[in-house]
Amino acid sequence: MTRYQHLANILAQRIEQGLYRHGEKLPSVRALSQEHGVSISTVQQAYQMLENLQLITPQPRSGYFIAPRKAQPPVPAMSRPAQRPVEVTQWDQVLTLLDARNDKSITALGGGSPDVTQPTLKPLWKEMSRLVQHNGGDIFNYDELPGRRELREQIARLMLDNGAVVTADDIVVTSGCHAALSIALLSVCKPGDIIAVESPSFYGTMQLLRGFDIKAIEIPTDPQTGISIEALEMALEQWPIKGVILVPNCNNPLGFIMPDARKRAVLALAQRYDIAIFEDDIYGELANDYPRPRTIKSWDIDGRVLLCSSFTKTVAPGLRVGWIAPGRYHDRVLHMKYAASGTNVPTTQLAVAAFIREGHYHRHLRRMRQIYHSNMETWTCWVREYFPCGICVTRPQGGFLLWVELPEHVDMVCVARQLCRLKIQVAPGSLFSASGKYRNCLRLNCALPPTEQHRAVVEQLGEAVRIAME
Amino acid sequence: MTRYQHLANILAQRIEQGLYRHGEKLPSVRALSQEHGVSISTVQQAYQMLENLQLITPQPRSGYFIAPRKAQPPVPAMSRPAQRPVEVTQWDQVLTLLDARNDKSITALGGGSPDVTQPTLKPLWKEMSRLVQHNGGDIFNYDELPGRRELREQIARLMLDNGAVVTADDIVVTSGCHAALSIALLSVCKPGDIIAVESPSFYGTMQLLRGFDIKAIEIPTDPQTGISIEALEMALEQWPIKGVILVPNCNNPLGFIMPDARKRAVLALAQRYDIAIFEDDIYGELANDYPRPRTIKSWDIDGRVLLCSSFTKTVAPGLRVGWIAPGRYHDRVLHMKYAASGTNVPTTQLAVAAFIREGHYHRHLRRMRQIYHSNMETWTCWVREYFPCGICVTRPQGGFLLWVELPEHVDMVCVARQLCRLKIQVAPGSLFSASGKYRNCLRLNCALPPTEQHRAVVEQLGEAVRIAME
Ligand SMILES: Cc1ncc(COP(=O)(O)O)c(C=O)c1O
Ligand SMILES: Cc1ncc(COP(=O)(O)O)c(C=O)c1O
Repeated sequence: MTRYQHLANILAQRIEQGLYRHGEKLPSVRALSQEHGVSISTVQQAYQMLENLQLITPQPRSGYFIAPRKAQPPVPAMSRPAQRPVEVTQWDQVLTLLDARNDKSITALGGGSPDVTQPTLKPLWKEMSRLVQHNGGDIFNYDELPGRRELREQIARLMLDNGAVVTADDIVVTSGCHAALSIALLSVCKPGDIIAVESPSFYGTMQLLRGFDIKAIEIPTDPQTGISIEALEMALEQWPIKGVILVPNCNNPLGFIMPDARKRAVLALAQRYDIAIFEDDIYGELANDYPRPRTIKSWDIDGRVLLCSSFTKTVAPGLRVGWIAPGRYHDRVLHMKYAASGTNVPTTQLAVAAFIREGHYHRHLRRMRQIYHSNMETWTCWVREYFPCGICVTRPQGGFLLWVELPEHVDMVCVARQLCRLKIQVAPGSLFSASGKYRNCLRLNCALPPTEQHRAVVEQLGEAVRIAME
Repeated sequence: MTRYQHLANILAQRIEQGLYRHGEKLPSVRALSQEHGVSISTVQQAYQMLENLQLITPQPRSGYFIAPRKAQPPVPAMSRPAQRPVEVTQWDQVLTLLDARNDKSITALGGGSPDVTQPTLKPLWKEMSRLVQHNGGDIFNYDELPGRRELREQIARLMLDNGAVVTADDIVVTSGCHAALSIALLSVCKPGDIIAVESPSFYGTMQLLRGFDIKAIEIPTDPQTGISIEALEMALEQWPIKGVILVPNCNNPLGFIMPDARKRAVLALAQRYDIAIFEDDIYGELANDYPRPRTIKSWDIDGRVLLCSSFTKTVAPGLRVGWIAPGRYHDRVLHMKYAASGTNVPTTQLAVAAFIREGHYHRHLRRMRQIYHSNMETWTCWVREYFPCGICVTRPQGGFLLWVELPEHVDMVCVARQLCRLKIQVAPGSLFSASGKYRNCLRLNCALPPTEQHRAVVEQLGEAVRIAME
């Protein structure tokens, strides 16, 4: 984060907390420059940024004033999905979303891509290039079945940060988190089985269930504390559920971090009803606060948690380096990895291992946590400014995804189709439900550094929503 | 191939064809040098090579003589597997084989690794290194779901060589041929289904069936012409078979190329019984003869053939670049690809696309076809020399795998375990049968350039087999 961004953040927070009142004049540029020991131009840039965010307005020849503000929109309420096992639908919609991914003319706010343009990634490309140049051939033979030991060792060390004590032998490398989840599920479930999921939950995981003919039962989920323990227990009483898939840390799409007590409560339930937990920690390292939150895996004493993750969100999707810490399911997972895909690309694994070992990963992560946090604040401000009243917005505790709930009657599937023509892509909420609920919601990707163009896009979005609301 | 290898091959063929008789004196070094217009030292090297192969013996001060030879061992007879659907077993044995793969102290003759040390691969490493260095970030974002268009276009062009007319839109890129087969199978089958396979057949495919709870029915297969059409038809009459998996070109493990008429006969059967054909063409480009053999896919008019392949054997396993040409199953395959693993690594795809586009692929292929052909002849000679009488050996028409059948009572699983202690690894035949038949067989990998050390290993192998035969 640059100096002016830092300053702008401080000021934005003060405004947020109500330390300045609407219409109040802000300190002069000179005064602020002295207070914070930064240059005049830094203050000017910070003010410019706040102006772009529409937090302040300039008045010619008299300085900056706090802009008239709408109240902060509330967080959505606990979700209320259909509480019976259903087949997952929505594949056509997901395919449409994926198809737009590589069209450069589209402003893609619907996907889950991270920012891969940061300079802290350079050592990774360098290492990969070096590896290929010097060991071509050698490192392009078959990989070890569980994945490169060098990498598994680094992953085991990283996992200490989330409280899980595992060794390299407890790790199975996969081709991304998606493959991790699919191998984990195939290792535990059969077609026809029922799996409990958060609602809303990541569309990729839902399609995975569909692909393997596994039924999903959506459990009410609170956008601030996660899956409802009570509703999960009721479902477990009622149905022969085999396991539950959770994204407890920096949830996709809701952004919450489950409080530790609730993580433990879910684990206790899983023990009581003897089910598996598929814990998807893909965003866990991108929590706003440091140190990062604990995983359910960290309390797992009988190996029923299959932790799945990848370097997709923290480093880059195209690496396709993910992993499972499969607990008691290790041998079965190894077989299913072999059955489903054989081994993985060794080069990317070795490059990531070196990236971590040499400290570049943690440096990069520190930077991305700050950047995403600051981006999310900007995007949230924009949504508040440009969307009509009567909406709810999540307050993500990490990651880079924002979930917006519009009034019941708004159909985001329709709106998304219209936006398509404007070359703007968002993810309608219905993708995140097995049965296509949440048509009145959307998910926004806020990973990219906010630009004037993005601001204009959010303005267009807001306008489209306003029309749909009328 | 160097000049002396070329000369040695010519001479070896003449000996093979009986143009020289046992004990007969060979032309002098000088005479041969004049006949072939090569240097004295080239002839000396060629003779040295033939001596190593024990085809000729030197007699001090009088020249080289044809060595006393054993008769060429016969090709194994048509296989006779149990002809009812069974669950695939043997996973522990396969795991043992895979575990040895990355142990450098072991002479690994059991796996399917190609030779990745050839200089014709250099442009590939260079391209990959360049790509990463110049486009890091950009090319490490998510791939298109069907795979990189640049690559799919090249694959479609390559496929013209096997007679199949497809476009980039008919191709789905996968993480190797293993993933291709698993996605193809998942797109057509459900657990409990029955799939017909050649017998013996590749252990990886068998374990895939096991992983997805699909039963295998092994069909008698002839080591020279492939699966028995008659036996396949009988099985189709008797059981509700969903599809058949075939490796019709340069079969693993038997090395045959199915005659075109038989390929068409299988297709006709598939049409008659309305089943799918999973055609595994992974070795197809490595046929000894040029142009390469046709695929069943090339006659497929109603899209029932799912052609699966990869650049694993032709280029390098660690690329994990494979593909499916799924015919009528395209949409389902795309969904199953998404469900099973999401997208693939873009970098390796782009590098392979450039490697093909710039002509390096075909150059490399030409070289490898020759090298593997010549390696196979050497290894075959060694087996003939060092193994006891009473064995059968395949005459592969391409690829780099040799299948040896020993007398019924020999247990190669036991022998393999003993060889392990000598740091020699072979693949016992039982891996290639769902029910663990063919314990009296073994598969040898002949991809590596034959060295004196390899000769010694084959000698040890032969000795171990001899003891087991007693
Ligand atoms: C919660 C969640 N799980 C899994 C995945 C898939 O991750 P990968 O790209 O590593 O396969 C994503 C990506 O969007 C995700 O958001
Ligand atoms: C016949 C056959 N099919 C498939 C495979 C798997 O190929 P890949 O390594 O590209 O996944 C192999 C590799 O040994 C093979 O021999």
